[in-house]
This record gives sequence, structure tokens and C-alpha cells, in this order.
Amino acid sequence: MTATRIDGKAIAAALREKIAVEGKKLIDETGVVPGIAVVIVGEDPASKVYVASKGKAANECHFKSVEHALPADTSEDTLLSLVGELNEDDSIHGILVQLPLPDHIDESKVLELIRPDKDVDGFHPINVGLLTAGAKDKAMVPCTPAGSLILAKRSLGDLSGKSAVVVGRSNIVGKPMAALLLAESCTVTIAHSRTKDLPSVVKAADIVVAAVGRPQMIKGDWIKDGACVIDVGINRIPAPERGEGKTRLVGDVDYDGAAEHAGFITPVPGGVGPMTIALLMANTLTSARRAAGLEDLDYAALLG
Amino acid sequence: MTATRIDGKAIAAALREKIAVEGKKLIDETGVVPGIAVVIVGEDPASKVYVASKGKAANECHFKSVEHALPADTSEDTLLSLVGELNEDDSIHGILVQLPLPDHIDESKVLELIRPDKDVDGFHPINVGLLTAGAKDKAMVPCTPAGSLILAKRSLGDLSGKSAVVVGRSNIVGKPMAALLLAESCTVTIAHSRTKDLPSVVKAADIVVAAVGRPQMIKGDWIKDGACVIDVGINRIPAPERGEGKTRLVGDVDYDGAAEHAGFITPVPGGVGPMTIALLMANTLTSARRAAGLEDLDYAALLG
Repeated sequence: MTATRIDGKAIAAALREKIAVEGKKLIDETGVVPGIAVVIVGEDPASKVYVASKGKAANECHFKSVEHALPADTSEDTLLSLVGELNEDDSIHGILVQLPLPDHIDESKVLELIRPDKDVDGFHPINVGLLTAGAKDKAMVPCTPAGSLILAKRSLGDLSGKSAVVVGRSNIVGKPMAALLLAESCTVTIAHSRTKDLPSVVKAADIVVAAVGRPQMIKGDWIKDGACVIDVGINRIPAPERGEGKTRLVGDVDYDGAAEHAGFITPVPGGVGPMTIALLMANTLTSARRAAGLEDLDYAALLG
Repeated sequence: MTATRIDGKAIAAALREKIAVEGKKLIDETGVVPGIAVVIVGEDPASKVYVASKGKAANECHFKSVEHALPADTSEDTLLSLVGELNEDDSIHGILVQLPLPDHIDESKVLELIRPDKDVDGFHPINVGLLTAGAKDKAMVPCTPAGSLILAKRSLGDLSGKSAVVVGRSNIVGKPMAALLLAESCTVTIAHSRTKDLPSVVKAADIVVAAVGRPQMIKGDWIKDGACVIDVGINRIPAPERGEGKTRLVGDVDYDGAAEHAGFITPVPGGVGPMTIALLMANTLTSARRAAGLEDLDYAALLG
């Protein structure tokens, strides 16, 4: 079997287009312009790339986009005040504080100050609780797992009764992914570094979500024939074959090996990554729609 | 193999005694008397029994205990006002609204009004979120799963790396149980009515938590040899052998069959049930200690 490659880049582009159309419709019909504020503290180059691409996606979607770039020595109080102002600003529907923050700032204090309805990252304890309790219609759902779920559903259709294993138990990906798959009525297993006989655990699964941050640790022969493999990992490894000192990006899954067994598999890059930013736009639109008293859109359905 | 019967009743009694000692100590050292308010609306006989036993346990623990029994036709507004008053009352550290509430009252509205630090049932979305995110030291943890975890740890010791299956995905038991087992570094599978081949899923587990509410649905030969079986179910079934019209309580597990395979198993009644009320007292004490600026106690360790 050779797996179908899930083209996350194309699906994310299609989704952003749908969101742009819906964003335009919202503006025309209600006057509400979805607005997102991205806050970045310091000069981390990777963070700057992410923030820039978020701003670009927001512009493409006709959203208002504001970037607050603060120096690395910004005090916690200053950052908290800024979040407080953004909480009160009716033109802003999504607030995203780019992580990591400098060491002198208490991350959870900042994240917990963000108003839950504007928490487009979905990291606030209230949003975690609402998602866990199955109240997706009230929660903000973290972008990477939400995007991963869309890819799995587009591949397999109805997920009810399927066995899913999530490898990795981070608060940002693993745990919310498990909650989403459970809400789709999968039988969900959460595996991690302490799991015994991980190959067998993975082998039993119809859906494998890899989110551990270890390059190519999940091997091809661990994958059940026909399974759907969603690789959330983005790891940079040396690529001497490309020249001295060169590197390349790989996922947490050995793509070539897994593609021999899987039915569907996401590549890295070009799989889950682009979906994350698309879902950030989706969350911002959802927040703006809720502020306008409108119901949530089903983005998976919107994609058709 | 014949399983060791886990005597939840005796363990719960021992825990209540320890809590009473710690409660007394808190009063003597800080003057803070742990206080719990139980609110019951209507005349449901089962609810009245639960409320009475909660009051009794509170008295045994030297806690202040207040019962608010409201008529079945109490308006939502009246109930919300009462919760608001209890939120402001410094002598009350735990607020418990007995469920179910009458149909004309929006349960989630009431539960979400309870101040999270006084939410001794652990049902508030913030507490769900904190528990899910692994911040047990800030959360209030639901009583039944917290009590079940103590029983599992007393039976098996360190749970790290063990495979656990939680059968049932309720917000009250199944999901918080899964979060607690994950925090103990178990490999956790959540199974439910849509799960395919449940017997095999259960058979793979070192720890089985049954919380489905279907009498004796988990059969003895589904249990792995030596596993620890925690039966949360309490179901009343006909018991003609005890005389015409007689009934008896059984769990979700076929006790006799499972005891032939399991290493440890909780009976019903006398297993998890008594632990729930003991953990309610533990949560009330935790809330009072936090209000006094003291650290959380480790109740499993306290039991020795």
C-alpha cells in the first residue's frame, strides 16, 4: 500500500479562501470587521516568522490585524496592561500572545488574563475545560489539533468508533487532540514517553497523531495498514546530502516507511503546519461572529 | 487467581479520620473552620440521602456544615442569588449544589456561577481545564475519580507506564479519571459505547475503571490476569433470591467473574462509593487550607 499524501498546504489555502469569503460576508452584513492582535515580546527569529505569516493570513482574510512588538525587557506589568487594553477593545476579537515569552514573565499569568472569548489560541483554562467537557460551541479550540482533525475527517470521513492514538501529551496539541477525537466518538489512547511497547500501541490505531517533537521516531512498520497518519512534529535535522551544514525539516514520523503502510499521511512540511494558521483565522472569525450574535460555522463542512 | 477485595469503606473511614485530625489542626492553628454548604432543590429521595450523608461526614470532620433545602419550584434566579451569597461568605469554603436540578433550572448556569476555588465538586470549566492541563495543585478535582485514583494507587503503587482503560466518557467520572491517570503517567485509553471490540480493549489494561452505569456489563474473562479493577457503577437490579420484589446493588463489572482474573477489585457497594464522600471532605479541607495560605495535603500519602 502506498499512502495518499494529505496536501495540508492546499487544504489550508482553500480554507483561508472560504474564511475570506465569510469574513467579507460578515463585514457586509453586520459591519463587524474581524480583528486580531498579535503580541510578540523580544527578538526570537522563529517567532517573528510566525507572527509575520499570521499577519499576512489575516490581511488575506480581510481581517483587521494589529501587531504589538515589545522589547525583550518589557515588564510583566506592561504586558499585562496591554492584554487588559486588548480585552477591552471591541475592534479586537482575537488576542494571540506569541510564545515563548522571556523568562522574567509568567506565561500562565499572561495567558489566563486573555479574555476567554478572545483567546484564539484556546489555551485559557476555561477553554480547555469547555473543550474537555464537550462544549466546543462555547470554547475556543486550539488551532493545531483543530486543523489536524479536519485533515483526519477529510481522509476517513466519519471517525465514530475508530481507534485513535495520540502520541504526546502536551497541553497545546496532545491533550486537546485527544478531546477532539473523543468528541468524534473515537476510542482514544494517549501515549507518551512512559508508554510501554509503543509500536504495538500505534499498530492498533486507525488514526495516529504524532506530537512528540522527536524526529522520525515513529517507524513505518508501527503503522497499521490503511491507517491515517497525522504528523504534527516539525524537527530540523542535518541534511549533508544537500551540502555541508545544510538542514531539512522532518516530522515525528518516518514518512517514507509509514507511507508504505498508511492509507493517508501528512507530509512535513506542508501537512499540519499550514492548517494551524488557517484555523487561527477560523477562530478569529468565530469570535467575531459570536460577538455579532451569529452561530459558529462548521469549517470542515465549509471546505466541502 | 482470586483478587484482593479493595475495602473502600474501611479506606474511606480511615481517610475521614485523617481529615478530621487535619481539620482540627487547621482550626487550632489558624482559627479557620472548614465550611461546606450543600444546596438541594426539590424532594428527590436519593439526593436527600446523599445530602444527609455529606452533612454527617462534615460533622465528623469538625467542619461547619450548612444545608439549604429549597422547594422544587424555586426559581433559577433565587438559586443563583443563593450561590452568589455563598460565594461571598468567607465561612464557606465548599459549595455543592446537589444534582439533578429541576428541569426549569439551567444546571450549567448554576455550576458555572460557583466560585472555582469553592467548587468542591470540581465541575466548573476552570477546574476541568486546570485538571486537564495538569495543574492539580490549583484545581478542584472531582471526588469520585480522585477517590478511585487513591484506591488504584494503594493497590498497585506507582502507576507510571501502566496501561489504563476508562470505560465511560462522562464529564463527572470518565474524563477526569482519564486526566488523573494520565497525570500519573499511565497510557490511557478512553472507551465508550461506540468502542469496537471492548473486551479486547479491556483485556489489554493493567487498570480498568468502569463508569458506564450498566449493570455487570464488563465480564470476568475481559479482565487481564492481575489487573486492578475499579468499579464506579452503582446499579440496582432485581434480586428475587432475596424475596419477591427485592433488589440489590451491583456495579458495572461482573464482580465474581472478574475476581477470578483481577489482582485487585472494588466491590459494589463498599468500594468507590464511600471514597466519594471522603474526597468531598478532602476538597473542602483543601479549599479552607488554600484560603488560609497553606499548601495542599497529599491525601493518598496521609493514608500511609
